[in-house]
Amino acid sequence: MSTIKSNQLLDQLNWRYATKQFDADKKISAADWATLETALQLTPSSAGLQPWHFFVVTNPEMREKLKPAAYGQGQIGNASHLVVFAAKTNFSEADADAHLANVAKTQGVSTEALTPLRGMIIGGIIKGMDETARNAWSRNQIYIALGNLLTSAAVLGIDACPMEGFDRAQFDEILGLKSKGLASAVIATLGYRSATDKYAAAAKVRFPKEKLFTHI
Amino acid sequence: MSTIKSNQLLDQLNWRYATKQFDADKKISAADWATLETALQLTPSSAGLQPWHFFVVTNPEMREKLKPAAYGQGQIGNASHLVVFAAKTNFSEADADAHLANVAKTQGVSTEALTPLRGMIIGGIIKGMDETARNAWSRNQIYIALGNLLTSAAVLGIDACPMEGFDRAQFDEILGLKSKGLASAVIATLGYRSATDKYAAAAKVRFPKEKLFTHI
Repeated sequence: MSTIKSNQLLDQLNWRYATKQFDADKKISAADWATLETALQLTPSSAGLQPWHFFVVTNPEMREKLKPAAYGQGQIGNASHLVVFAAKTNFSEADADAHLANVAKTQGVSTEALTPLRGMIIGGIIKGMDETARNAWSRNQIYIALGNLLTSAAVLGIDACPMEGFDRAQFDEILGLKSKGLASAVIATLGYRSATDKYAAAAKVRFPKEKLFTHI
Repeated sequence: MSTIKSNQLLDQLNWRYATKQFDADKKISAADWATLETALQLTPSSAGLQPWHFFVVTNPEMREKLKPAAYGQGQIGNASHLVVFAAKTNFSEADADAHLANVAKTQGVSTEALTPLRGMIIGGIIKGMDETARNAWSRNQIYIALGNLLTSAAVLGIDACPMEGFDRAQFDEILGLKSKGLASAVIATLGYRSATDKYAAAAKVRFPKEKLFTHI
């Protein structure tokens, strides 16, 4: 166990903010980036199905190409890393079987032993939902990954800006996602805040707990 | 800054798992629970709008009432805390204005100065989406909160089980959510794993990084 203290967690969650201006000269080290990718990889998902793919864009030309599709927002250019969270569309039996094969391999069990689990997944997620509902489901899952990444980056002292302000259709087109059975859901830029980002000093705005919580 | 080391974060993310059996005698302390509520409160959301409400259920009678609507899953009974993540339905101008009033108050700015921000929110989220899209949007946001809570609990050494296997309509009915303009999206149980939960020792199943990431 490598648990941390409550005040460490809360200090870092208070420290983080949606960084508007990154220091373009400060890059996330390869080691730290590998940590963030491992954190993303470890994200929990419904039945462990991981209906997602992450595009990590550092290439400056590609970033310039994507920037207009994110309404010219500066973070696309000046952040160290850009992650495009792509959700699987029309999640299929084959997708489920890819996961089940991985379960069998990782846990050393027969695929036969996984028949009840398979039945639950196929019944609940694939046959139990139409394509629209399944796409909403996979998109929901990917926001767990976003939440995990933002908190993971915060505790490591890495800045991030989650962004929904981009044209999903254009991103899908530029990255060729449709033919891969994927659709962009949300993006995040990561790096280190610029010393001149005035938003860093702004008071954090949250509803008071009594408005957010009901105890029963 | 109270940053933590990469290996601390990854140790804790590897330590966590979807806890199936909690030790019913081990309760999360009031101090630790307050930390988790603060972490939830600090969750980022689209334009900071926090389109959510969290029901924290510890009352044993209410837990027993909810249990059949979660297909009898044991965690509902034996976890220390149950959180029902409820998303705002039909998010409205009034909801946006409640947030903007809080921005004005917290940051000491006039509501007039927030007119451009208001225009963006009303245009992008309220007039720019129909009710179905807006409900999907608020549900997406709440999964950021789920991801944040799961990672926050993990780094503190608190166990959790995110759960989609429950009847949303029944939960809404039992908790009276509809009349409050809310709909249950996902739930999580939290507490401490039982020494006899065999799933604690199971190898974690994730796709390899080369299947999850594309670098551009």
